[in-house]
Amino acid sequence: MAEVAALGVDIGGTKLLALAVGSDGEVLDRRRLTTPRGDADALGGAIGELARELGPGLPLGIGVAGITDRDGTLRYGPNLAVEDVPLGRDLRGELEVPVAVHNDVTVALYAEWRIGAGRGADDVVMVTLGTGVGGAVIAGGRLLTGAEGLAGELGHLPVYDGGRPCGCGNRGCLEAYASGSAVGLRARERLTDEDGPSALRELDRDAVDGKAVTLAALDGDAFALEVLREAGYWLGVGLTGIVNAFDPAIVVIGGGAATRSAPIVVPEASRIVAERVIGADHRTLPRVVPAELADDAGAIGAALLALDEARSG
Amino acid sequence: MAEVAALGVDIGGTKLLALAVGSDGEVLDRRRLTTPRGDADALGGAIGELARELGPGLPLGIGVAGITDRDGTLRYGPNLAVEDVPLGRDLRGELEVPVAVHNDVTVALYAEWRIGAGRGADDVVMVTLGTGVGGAVIAGGRLLTGAEGLAGELGHLPVYDGGRPCGCGNRGCLEAYASGSAVGLRARERLTDEDGPSALRELDRDAVDGKAVTLAALDGDAFALEVLREAGYWLGVGLTGIVNAFDPAIVVIGGGAATRSAPIVVPEASRIVAERVIGADHRTLPRVVPAELADDAGAIGAALLALDEARSG
Repeated sequence: MAEVAALGVDIGGTKLLALAVGSDGEVLDRRRLTTPRGDADALGGAIGELARELGPGLPLGIGVAGITDRDGTLRYGPNLAVEDVPLGRDLRGELEVPVAVHNDVTVALYAEWRIGAGRGADDVVMVTLGTGVGGAVIAGGRLLTGAEGLAGELGHLPVYDGGRPCGCGNRGCLEAYASGSAVGLRARERLTDEDGPSALRELDRDAVDGKAVTLAALDGDAFALEVLREAGYWLGVGLTGIVNAFDPAIVVIGGGAATRSAPIVVPEASRIVAERVIGADHRTLPRVVPAELADDAGAIGAALLALDEARSG
Repeated sequence: MAEVAALGVDIGGTKLLALAVGSDGEVLDRRRLTTPRGDADALGGAIGELARELGPGLPLGIGVAGITDRDGTLRYGPNLAVEDVPLGRDLRGELEVPVAVHNDVTVALYAEWRIGAGRGADDVVMVTLGTGVGGAVIAGGRLLTGAEGLAGELGHLPVYDGGRPCGCGNRGCLEAYASGSAVGLRARERLTDEDGPSALRELDRDAVDGKAVTLAALDGDAFALEVLREAGYWLGVGLTGIVNAFDPAIVVIGGGAATRSAPIVVPEASRIVAERVIGADHRTLPRVVPAELADDAGAIGAALLALDEARSG
């Protein structure tokens, strides 16, 4: 049996998942807790305890929903109701092991790149569709971090400036058009504004969310299919910019909302990219593919990233 | 006196500039030719001759207006009326020296990064404003190339999908709103549609181009100033996406149109970035600065890049 090589922790807004991981990404042990929200000390304490239990003395990787910097500080984590938490520094001091802290999409991409849908390529972009739209980038075989570690916020690429309001306070970001929440919102708007038939009319208005739209679309509901294809169109608009900027070999589409919607959304987005990317006739188009790893991706990727960072010094 | 360390060639749509460059970017000799358009053999022949004359046996760097790949093939050069020209392969074979071929913005960025407005930072983005809008990226101290060497086409980030037509065939790219040509076009439209006073009304309609608008704005013409600020606004929208994606420490604004317009356009764009970038309150904003090197930047950068590539094997 493989040995535990690193510990990976994925801190979500409600659940915290810790995985003891082998050097090839095999999951050897796991724990799941409720995330201590709004309490930075409790958060650090819980992770320290898990690390001592599951991977004492081993590199520790953490993925967290929020903005993290190069030093491993969670600068801004609205879903966790904390800010400026020096997780990396505190845990390095306490545990005396290498600690890598990155945002949740970055660690998920790392797992997909090492052992999932992005393996084998040196240039891979991940876009996640969920409540929001996240992004992360492997460029030239390395994580793209940027000056402060904040690179890869691809959900906030503008696609239609001044358009639909986005959670970030701007209008017209990709997230406002292609997230799971955007799909639900758009369906509710169109059900109010339009007359056509749809199984979604049988639901309470509040129950018409991204998941309900996707399930109806997969069940053949023409209205729901149209709403989802519209989100796929906008994803394609955003990906056109992303491909023009990064020239990836592979684009991995992940996130909770994509788990079911990928078969509808991904082909639509790919079609737009193929039509619009610059020099399309003179280049190999990237493969746009769904993520392969499920809910464990973030914690596995965090562990592998911590391991690789520890090895490369 | 410094010794010639490499030769840099900047191939534009009309002029070809060759510079013999020292190891710190000093220009030691220069030649200027008319670009042989539509004739790949003549183009390769002219560069080979310049290399033998100005830098025999030395690394050769080439910057060219068009899409170039990792192998040094000019895949698509509409301004030169050629395509799929294996410049790198042919010149390596002929001259038996290291040959680096990149697009014109990439080499200009390389010069700004090494000895100009981007020096000292590991994460630098360049956006050029001219007939079109170009881009190039240094990420983590390395050129961002992408899978095929086509990364950095930042002028074709969508900012208003379905909006103004772009030279690339799409609608709503950054280039369609922020290029020098876009400024001229927008001014001509508004002069037709609106009644207000402007010194630009004294010109023939065809003479109202980006340069004329900029000169009038610098002269205090309120209408021209408004048109230019509008381009600055859109540049800011595009830069917001670019900063969200790349998290650069420095954004260098270059290109012919920016030479004069930077004092108006850059502050406006910076203001938008500061308002809109994700997590603005939790990060250091990048400095948005005009390019420092003038028309020699491309050839100097091509030479330095060829030198660095030759050194790193």
